[in-house]
Amino acid sequence: MRVDAAANREAIVEAAKNLFADVGVDVPVRRIAAQAGVGMGTLYRHFPDRMSLVVGVADAVYERLDAAAGRCEQAWGSAPEAAWAGFVHELAALRLGRLLMQVGGSSELFAAGGPGPGLRERALTRIAQVLERAHAAGLVRQDVDPIRFQVGVVELSRPLGAAVDEMAPGWQDWLVDVYLRGLRP
Amino acid sequence: MRVDAAANREAIVEAAKNLFADVGVDVPVRRIAAQAGVGMGTLYRHFPDRMSLVVGVADAVYERLDAAAGRCEQAWGSAPEAAWAGFVHELAALRLGRLLMQVGGSSELFAAGGPGPGLRERALTRIAQVLERAHAAGLVRQDVDPIRFQVGVVELSRPLGAAVDEMAPGWQDWLVDVYLRGLRP
Repeated sequence: MRVDAAANREAIVEAAKNLFADVGVDVPVRRIAAQAGVGMGTLYRHFPDRMSLVVGVADAVYERLDAAAGRCEQAWGSAPEAAWAGFVHELAALRLGRLLMQVGGSSELFAAGGPGPGLRERALTRIAQVLERAHAAGLVRQDVDPIRFQVGVVELSRPLGAAVDEMAPGWQDWLVDVYLRGLRP
Repeated sequence: MRVDAAANREAIVEAAKNLFADVGVDVPVRRIAAQAGVGMGTLYRHFPDRMSLVVGVADAVYERLDAAAGRCEQAWGSAPEAAWAGFVHELAALRLGRLLMQVGGSSELFAAGGPGPGLRERALTRIAQVLERAHAAGLVRQDVDPIRFQVGVVELSRPLGAAVDEMAPGWQDWLVDVYLRGLRP
């Protein structure tokens, strides 16, 4: 793929990810193209149908999660607690849960083997690996399983709108830190 | 007010509260009447316009919060920690935050002195009183102010749908307990 083609593809996936999370997977393709700053022809060349776009977004989100988990594991040796905290903050910023819920809301795409359950399963497996380290290092109570842990991250990381951001600046990072403390044994 | 009139009023307020939280304050009045099991005439007799309905809901929600805070203060002497935990669990179940956000989303109703800011201010003042006890009893860190605390409750208590409830049963109570531990000094 040429450099500009790769950049277009990335812009489309990023726009689709945000619009899927905010609006839903049924968002008109024109809005995705407009937000990505590409023409409809370019979009269809990369993603001939909606399913391929959802798969593209699922792969991109998993790659970001995988990269965050990798960075966490790399940093673990010198400072496990900081590595774990950094991972959970990145996870909250990913909006993975919101995306999964929107993808899951479309029953057609939620069919067995579709990108919804596929991404959820891959994501939970990767998260479980990091969580196991955190358990072993005594950073997390034993009753914290990957699903509950991820449900907590989903709840903590929902946007609350500009009015709340102004009234309680920094609330999101504060809340993730409270969560991290609450998970400790 | 006769007994059946009072029961009707209560049913209307309860239906309006749930529909305001789920759909928004612009939900058609017919849906509120239908869910409350009353006719439109009965609804209009109790609440001649939408504003009076919003004020009615705001008052009812504040009353429930006030009752929960009162119960907490009554139980404080014998077991402060259990009283505090019970209050936060009740607060999460109230869906106060969701309601405030919906009421706040309507700029007309959000005008100074309207039920939105009025309820928020009253609610935060009442919550601050309980929080002060929790600070004094060493149950809560000093960096936990009423607004941040309430933002946290709002985030933790959003419904996630039947699929998540099935996948992670009891997640809501679990998460509130994690929150309570995370707030500790």
